[in-house]
Amino acid sequence: MAEDGTQPTGGTARRVVLDAMGGDHGPAETVPGALRARREHGLPVVLVGRTEAIRRELRRHGAVGEVDVLHAEEVVPMTEAGAGAAARPGTSLMTGCELARREAAAFVSAGSTGAVVTCAVRTLGRREGVLRPALAVALPTPAGSTVLIDAGGTADPTAEMLAQFAVMGAAYARNVLGVADPSVGLLSIGSERGKGNRLARRAGQLLPAMPVRFQGNVEGHDVLAGIVDVVVTDGFTGNIVLKNIEGCVRTTLGLVARAGIAEPRRLDQVGRLYTADTHGGAALLGLTGTVVVAHGASTSAAIARACLVASGLAAGEDLVPACGRPPVETVT
Amino acid sequence: MAEDGTQPTGGTARRVVLDAMGGDHGPAETVPGALRARREHGLPVVLVGRTEAIRRELRRHGAVGEVDVLHAEEVVPMTEAGAGAAARPGTSLMTGCELARREAAAFVSAGSTGAVVTCAVRTLGRREGVLRPALAVALPTPAGSTVLIDAGGTADPTAEMLAQFAVMGAAYARNVLGVADPSVGLLSIGSERGKGNRLARRAGQLLPAMPVRFQGNVEGHDVLAGIVDVVVTDGFTGNIVLKNIEGCVRTTLGLVARAGIAEPRRLDQVGRLYTADTHGGAALLGLTGTVVVAHGASTSAAIARACLVASGLAAGEDLVPACGRPPVETVT
Repeated sequence: MAEDGTQPTGGTARRVVLDAMGGDHGPAETVPGALRARREHGLPVVLVGRTEAIRRELRRHGAVGEVDVLHAEEVVPMTEAGAGAAARPGTSLMTGCELARREAAAFVSAGSTGAVVTCAVRTLGRREGVLRPALAVALPTPAGSTVLIDAGGTADPTAEMLAQFAVMGAAYARNVLGVADPSVGLLSIGSERGKGNRLARRAGQLLPAMPVRFQGNVEGHDVLAGIVDVVVTDGFTGNIVLKNIEGCVRTTLGLVARAGIAEPRRLDQVGRLYTADTHGGAALLGLTGTVVVAHGASTSAAIARACLVASGLAAGEDLVPACGRPPVETVT
Repeated sequence: MAEDGTQPTGGTARRVVLDAMGGDHGPAETVPGALRARREHGLPVVLVGRTEAIRRELRRHGAVGEVDVLHAEEVVPMTEAGAGAAARPGTSLMTGCELARREAAAFVSAGSTGAVVTCAVRTLGRREGVLRPALAVALPTPAGSTVLIDAGGTADPTAEMLAQFAVMGAAYARNVLGVADPSVGLLSIGSERGKGNRLARRAGQLLPAMPVRFQGNVEGHDVLAGIVDVVVTDGFTGNIVLKNIEGCVRTTLGLVARAGIAEPRRLDQVGRLYTADTHGGAALLGLTGTVVVAHGASTSAAIARACLVASGLAAGEDLVPACGRPPVETVT
C-alpha cells in the first residue's frame, strides 16, 4: 500500500497530507521535505500528485516505499490566482484537500495562496459564523512573537471580516503561542483613532465591540516591535508586509555584511528567523480543518517545518472558536 | 525685519518656508533644524508659527535674528487627519503654505501628513491634469535608490490615480535621481499579471498604456531589492511599507547587536540609511509648488535635511510634468 494507498500507515498519529506539486520547485523540494518530516520528526506524510514525478524523487533519495503516495494527474500552476478553475477535480490540490477532509488530517501546500484558499474552502468548508478564512503567521519579535493576520488569505475583505480576523488571530496567539490574554492592534497609517483608509477606519469602529483586547491602531514600524500580540490587517497589505519583512531583513543583513562589520556566516542566525525555513508557513484559520500554506519558494527544510506546524495545529484542532459576527449596524 | 518680516533676507536664493509648529517636538526640533540648514548649508529659511515659542528656542541657541520668523497663532495638532479643519486660516500650516505660494518658495512641514496634503492642495493647487498628489520617497537599495510612490498622500486612490502616480514617480527618478529611463513596478501580492486586490488589478490594466517603462507586478520583498526604479502603490499600503522598513531595519540591527556579532556603534551606519535623518522626508508631487513632508518624529538633523531636499527640488521645479489621464474606458 505504500505508494498508491490511501490508508494510513503511520499508526495512531494522524497523517499530514502534502501537495507534492505545489511551490516553485514541486517534487524536487516537497519530496525531500516529506522525507525530512518523516525521518527527523517521525511524522506520517502522504504525498499527493503525479506518481511518476514523485517516485523519481523518492528513488533519488533512496526512499521508495518510505512515504505514502496518492496519485493526482492535474497540477494547478503557481500563476493561478484562485478563481474557480483552481478547484477543478483531479488536481493535487483538490485531491489532497479531499483526502485531508476524509481523514481529518492536516493539509500542507506551497501552491498559489489563492488556489489553496479556494480549494480548502470548497472541500473543508468554513467554521460556523466565519465570513472568510485568514492566514496567520507568527513573526519573531525581540521579546517573543506577534501574529500577523491576514497575511494573504483574503485580498479584499470587508470591515466585518477584519473584525473576525482579530478574534481568530487572538485565538491563535492564545492556543498556539500560549499568550493568556492577547492584545490586538489594527494596522493603519497613524496611531490615532480615525486614521486609515476607508476599510481600516470602518474596522476600527467595529473592533471595540469584538471579544478581544483591542488596543487601537498600530503602524508599519510596530509590526516587529512586539507592542501587541496580534496585528490585524487585510490580506493584500498583510501579504506585502510579510514579504517586505523578508526582503528588508535580507537587505539589512547584506548591508551589514558589505560594510564588513560582521561575519556573513554569523549573520545567518538572524536571517534565518525571518525565512520560511523557520516559520514554516501560514495557518489558514476559520475552516473546519487544518491547512498550512507554505511559501512558494519553500526549500525542503521549509516544507518539513510546515508539516510539523500543521501536525501541531491539527492536534489542537478546536483551538479557533467559531466567530461571532460583529455588530454590522455600527458600520458607517 | 529679521523676526517678523515676510521679505526674503537671503539674497538671490529662494527661501525655504518651514512650519515651525509641525512634528512631534515642534519648535524644539524645527528651530535648531532651521539653524542647521542656514549655518551648514547656507539655506535661507523662514520659520512660521508662534513667535514667542520660536524666539524662546532661538534664544536658547544664541541665534535671535539669524533666521526670519513669520507669526501664525494657530497650530494644527498631529492628531488631525487632514479633513477640512486642517485648512483653517491662521495656522502655521496654512500661513506657511500661503507664504510659499506668494514667494514661489519650497514648503517643509513635519506635521500630520493628511493635514499638510490638505493645506498644500488648497493653497498651491494641483498641476494641470493631476487627479491627486502623491508622496515620493527615495529608499536606498544595495545598488542605488528606489522611489516609493505613494508613501501616504492619498489613502484611498482610484486605479486612474495610481496610473498617474507611476508617471510622477518616474519623473522624480529621472530628474532627482538621474535615472535615464526608469522602470516602474506595481506593488502587489504576486508577480503574475492579474494578482492583487481589486485596486491593484485595475491599475495593472491601466499601466501598460501610460508613458512609463512598466515592468509588471513587484512584491513586498522586491521593494528594497532595487529590481525596479519606481514602486507604485496606494498611500495606505505605501505608508505602511515605508514605516515597516524603518521598524524592520531597527529590529534586525537590534537582533544583530544582541547576538554580539557586531558593535552597536558600527551598526548605526547601516541604520542611518533608513531613518528620516537621512532621507529627509517625502516630496509631495503633483502640485504647482514644492512641498516636503518630514517624518513626525523628525530631529533637527532630519528637519535640516528636509529643507535641503526641498530647496533642491524647488530649483528644478518643473521636473514633474503634467500627467496625462489614463484611458479610463479600459477599467473593468
